[in-house]
Amino acid sequence: MHASKYHINTLKEAPSEAEVASHQLMTRAGMIRKAAGGIYSYMPMGLKVLRKIEAIIREEMNRAGAIELLMPVVQPAELWVESGRFKEYGPELLRIKDRHQRDFVLQPTSEEVITDIARNEIHSWRQLPVNFYHIQTKFRDERRPRFGLMRGREFIMKDAYSFDRDEEAAQLSYDRMYEAYMRIFTRLGLEFRAVAADTGAIGGSRSHEFQVIADTGEDLIVYNPESDYAANIELAEAPCLIPERAAPSEALQKTATPDAPKCELVAEQLGRPLTDTVKSIVLATDPVEKSEPVKIWLLLLRGDHELNEIKTSKLPGFENGYRFATEEEIVEHFGCMPGYLGPLNTRKPVNVIADTTVANMSDFICGANEEGYHYTGMNWVRDLPEAPVFDLRNVVDGDPDPKGGSLRIQRGIEVGHVFFLGDKYSRALNATFLETDGKPTIMQMGCYGIGVSRIAAAAIEQNHDSRGIIWPRAIAPFEVVICPLGYHKSETVRNIADTLYAELQAAGVDVMLDDRDTRPGIMFADWELIGVPLRVTVGERGLKDGVVEIQPRRASEADRVACDAALNHVLETLKSL
Amino acid sequence: MHASKYHINTLKEAPSEAEVASHQLMTRAGMIRKAAGGIYSYMPMGLKVLRKIEAIIREEMNRAGAIELLMPVVQPAELWVESGRFKEYGPELLRIKDRHQRDFVLQPTSEEVITDIARNEIHSWRQLPVNFYHIQTKFRDERRPRFGLMRGREFIMKDAYSFDRDEEAAQLSYDRMYEAYMRIFTRLGLEFRAVAADTGAIGGSRSHEFQVIADTGEDLIVYNPESDYAANIELAEAPCLIPERAAPSEALQKTATPDAPKCELVAEQLGRPLTDTVKSIVLATDPVEKSEPVKIWLLLLRGDHELNEIKTSKLPGFENGYRFATEEEIVEHFGCMPGYLGPLNTRKPVNVIADTTVANMSDFICGANEEGYHYTGMNWVRDLPEAPVFDLRNVVDGDPDPKGGSLRIQRGIEVGHVFFLGDKYSRALNATFLETDGKPTIMQMGCYGIGVSRIAAAAIEQNHDSRGIIWPRAIAPFEVVICPLGYHKSETVRNIADTLYAELQAAGVDVMLDDRDTRPGIMFADWELIGVPLRVTVGERGLKDGVVEIQPRRASEADRVACDAALNHVLETLKSL
Repeated sequence: MHASKYHINTLKEAPSEAEVASHQLMTRAGMIRKAAGGIYSYMPMGLKVLRKIEAIIREEMNRAGAIELLMPVVQPAELWVESGRFKEYGPELLRIKDRHQRDFVLQPTSEEVITDIARNEIHSWRQLPVNFYHIQTKFRDERRPRFGLMRGREFIMKDAYSFDRDEEAAQLSYDRMYEAYMRIFTRLGLEFRAVAADTGAIGGSRSHEFQVIADTGEDLIVYNPESDYAANIELAEAPCLIPERAAPSEALQKTATPDAPKCELVAEQLGRPLTDTVKSIVLATDPVEKSEPVKIWLLLLRGDHELNEIKTSKLPGFENGYRFATEEEIVEHFGCMPGYLGPLNTRKPVNVIADTTVANMSDFICGANEEGYHYTGMNWVRDLPEAPVFDLRNVVDGDPDPKGGSLRIQRGIEVGHVFFLGDKYSRALNATFLETDGKPTIMQMGCYGIGVSRIAAAAIEQNHDSRGIIWPRAIAPFEVVICPLGYHKSETVRNIADTLYAELQAAGVDVMLDDRDTRPGIMFADWELIGVPLRVTVGERGLKDGVVEIQPRRASEADRVACDAALNHVLETLKSL
Repeated sequence: MHASKYHINTLKEAPSEAEVASHQLMTRAGMIRKAAGGIYSYMPMGLKVLRKIEAIIREEMNRAGAIELLMPVVQPAELWVESGRFKEYGPELLRIKDRHQRDFVLQPTSEEVITDIARNEIHSWRQLPVNFYHIQTKFRDERRPRFGLMRGREFIMKDAYSFDRDEEAAQLSYDRMYEAYMRIFTRLGLEFRAVAADTGAIGGSRSHEFQVIADTGEDLIVYNPESDYAANIELAEAPCLIPERAAPSEALQKTATPDAPKCELVAEQLGRPLTDTVKSIVLATDPVEKSEPVKIWLLLLRGDHELNEIKTSKLPGFENGYRFATEEEIVEHFGCMPGYLGPLNTRKPVNVIADTTVANMSDFICGANEEGYHYTGMNWVRDLPEAPVFDLRNVVDGDPDPKGGSLRIQRGIEVGHVFFLGDKYSRALNATFLETDGKPTIMQMGCYGIGVSRIAAAAIEQNHDSRGIIWPRAIAPFEVVICPLGYHKSETVRNIADTLYAELQAAGVDVMLDDRDTRPGIMFADWELIGVPLRVTVGERGLKDGVVEIQPRRASEADRVACDAALNHVLETLKSL
């Protein structure tokens, strides 16, 4: 490709709304243009990146035996009613009406349509297993779309759905997809982790997220550098930090702690470490039958720990959801406003649950249910009845891993998700096949998503510097750019540049020749912003010594390479990019 | 690809709603599955066909210098308001609201978004010409979607938009696209015609449709087998069939023609040829200012001719549209009900227009404005004042071409359209660039569409028989299918089949090996229905003579070819398919 025949339009400034690097840089590099909030046009180089990502995904999906088809963007509501999601799905599901006032949705995923296809197409155990996928435009009507392609409304996703005879077979399909995803993200040239993840509202027993490591990621990943353990913080089990509960050594004492409604302030006021304090979190669960009362729960965590809402949602008694208690409910049960609450001397009985670490604390400090007072020297058994113990907290960087070593935390961007669905959709839509014994049997499903457009953004979040994007070679809009200095003035420069261009093309390299009549500084800045991983500069000065300059985007200096060795040098260097 | 690892599900019966061959056969062959009216899932083999069509389009668009990008499916209404189409476009434009009640549309085309991109991206004459295209899902909310992919609601289209400095340059862009389209449809292996077409409501001066020839087509194409003339019947100029007007030879006479409200009946009753009769068509044009009166027009056509509504819409005085006159208006002006109307003795003056052929008729028969009566022996000048003369009619098969030869009519399916837009959108959206003189200048545009999914259907309408589809090689889901008889029973059969499969794959042929354990009859019927252009049958009986059978889909008999010559025979035969 010659730059003069292509559309290159870089911008000095990113739009003020662009908060993250990928949004800023994709806009500045001219890869995306906003059409509406969360809706973008992919400009030529942005589209090239997407197509390269898609091609790698497609190859590995096919290699794993998945079969590509294409389901529609506009889907009939009936199927979504059948699965229950037409009602359950929040306002992110864009529900529309056609000219005859019939209900449709813009698909955010395609479980319903694929299950409908499966129940019509698959009749016999002989046809299983099967795994269908498509790469299609999705729509999710985010309340507040932002971060460019990271959280767009219209986006491109690969979603696959496996159908199996039983759970065991479905787990094999899951494993096959897991392996395919490992290959895909490795080939994309990204630093990533497969992390165990919560299965959320869908239920099912297994789920892994594929997270691209990046400081700007919204997800927290817990991992052990010495093992292969990695899990989303939502799911990662937090260890009990106190192996054995010590015997009480202090007397229980109500202590004045004026203006100290937080553990940090109490610890400071009393000159004690924060790890001696216990925080009280009051939750409520509403009854299914309105005639029954609301249940009030007191969750106890060590002062330096944070509540994990996913773990909380799985507590016994929390099956139908929970909420934070209202101030009114708190005063009614504790006789005190938030800030000084604790398990001892509540006005009405509450259900106390202790985090695993709190359960082994002794001589700890907690609220006295009286404004301006805390108890010190609180001890289980002696002062308080034992409470049910659960893992309630988020892992903290440095927590010991019970299996050895210690846990670390890093940020990630979720770009893929594999999910064992079980029969949630196949049962709702009655997708059955005839087993060997002739009995209709519900298929077992898995679903497997990859955010194609999000990968482009995540790659940038992981790979950029002050000058612009640094694409991994596999998904760069061009692998090499040749920058001739004086292409239109010097025949020598032009000949060398043209020859190298032709040779690289013949070698199958995706190469750009910048034949624009621009100043070198602008030319270099453009390609550094765009992030082409390797630049070859052809100038008269170098050619006097018989050399061209070859510079990887990450390198601080260029290699001076003899003209006749340039081709091989480029091909060799590319291998490492 | 091995059939056992693929999804093949053919049906004996097409759904009753499938009226045309392509809809029936694509459904029966398992290439599409209906999700809702006019909305389909493309099953694996259907998608393969689409991808092959897309690849050819993409290659030729790139070769012609067009640049691919991707505009969104969901587009903000503001741009459509700016162009005026949010209001003007009929109910086929699906208007939707997001969760914040903001207006959006599902794009049927992308003139607005691309013009918005152009006005933001293009600042200088140096950046022109440029031609952007995308291949994207479109939505057109047809009132009554039918004919499968021929007239779907959600469909895939390639649309390109050229931007130029002036009209002359824009015409060159148009020509370049015209040539690219010729190459595309030739490579697709379809019999087609590029036909001059009406420019419709968009205005502009040039337009060509690319029509796939098929008896089931909805469009009528006028062409001259002896020249390169071809035009849509809407546009095709109809010749005057009477070179010179003869002198009157009959007296004007009012003749009783009871119960003969149509020319055919009058001619029969009077024992005269239909070509001696003239039919009266009464139209009305409404005034722009309500204070002015409605104008009533009488269009005269020879009894055997049909009114061309496009030509009519271009008559002077018809700029703001026209309609058929109401019965009330007819009676008011003619003093007679429809069936016996004519130009002589109207109750009120009407504006008479004569078709070119009628203008040269003499001694003709027309209504007498009295129920049950016609005039015979009517002549211009003597009985009637000369009226303005225009081409009002559709060409009829066999009409002479004034440039020599005669005109023929055939049916076609429109699969492509090139259109010179001028400044309709660029002016509405103020898409300007700075000319060499520094003056902001409106860009000149062209738009160029190809119906990707429709091509698949049109190819089938043109190429099928009672057994199924006959794909042109270029867009067949597989180019060759190897059908081993007894793959799981005979090692010899399996070895020969496997070897040929490997050889064809190595030769770059898209080959399917049917390793299913099915009876030969079913296997053959499947592939004939699916329409793979070449089948190789490997069976023990043939192998005893050292041969395999190679049969093009259209051939009635197979070639028996020695095993070691099979590869070359297949490769040679493919060249002609």
